[in-house]
Amino acid sequence: MDKKRKEEVKQIFGQRLRNIRLEKGMSQEELAFQSSFDRTYISGIERGQKNPSLITIETLADALDVNTDSFFRD
Amino acid sequence: MDKKRKEEVKQIFGQRLRNIRLEKGMSQEELAFQSSFDRTYISGIERGQKNPSLITIETLADALDVNTDSFFRD
Repeated sequence: MDKKRKEEVKQIFGQRLRNIRLEKGMSQEELAFQSSFDRTYISGIERGQKNPSLITIETLADALDVNTDSFFRD
Repeated sequence: MDKKRKEEVKQIFGQRLRNIRLEKGMSQEELAFQSSFDRTYISGIERGQKNPSLITIETLADALDVNTDSFFRD
């Protein structure tokens, strides 16, 4: 996977995370509290600057009360 | 997320990766070649011993020619 595609993958994931969070009516602060991550880390993921692990992704899904595949559906 | 649940998340992901790989009729060696990962890393993920990143997960999906949400569907 080339560098451009990697950036795109992180961007798309971040946008979906943000969209789902907003659909749930949660602030970044609330999601940070529910997931036990720092708000700046949530912000970094949403801006496509992070490469979260499987466990992080599942933790975010749990905190948002969605199935993990929600992050990966078109 | 407690330690037991983290182990479970990795186990479930690994089992799904293995199932999809076998459905595609690919060996670990072939998946390693297609994804440019080491075969022992693929094996470790399948055995639930690794916590792959978003980019790794997407790379595996690309190598298997499946949508990423395939790994997360029940």
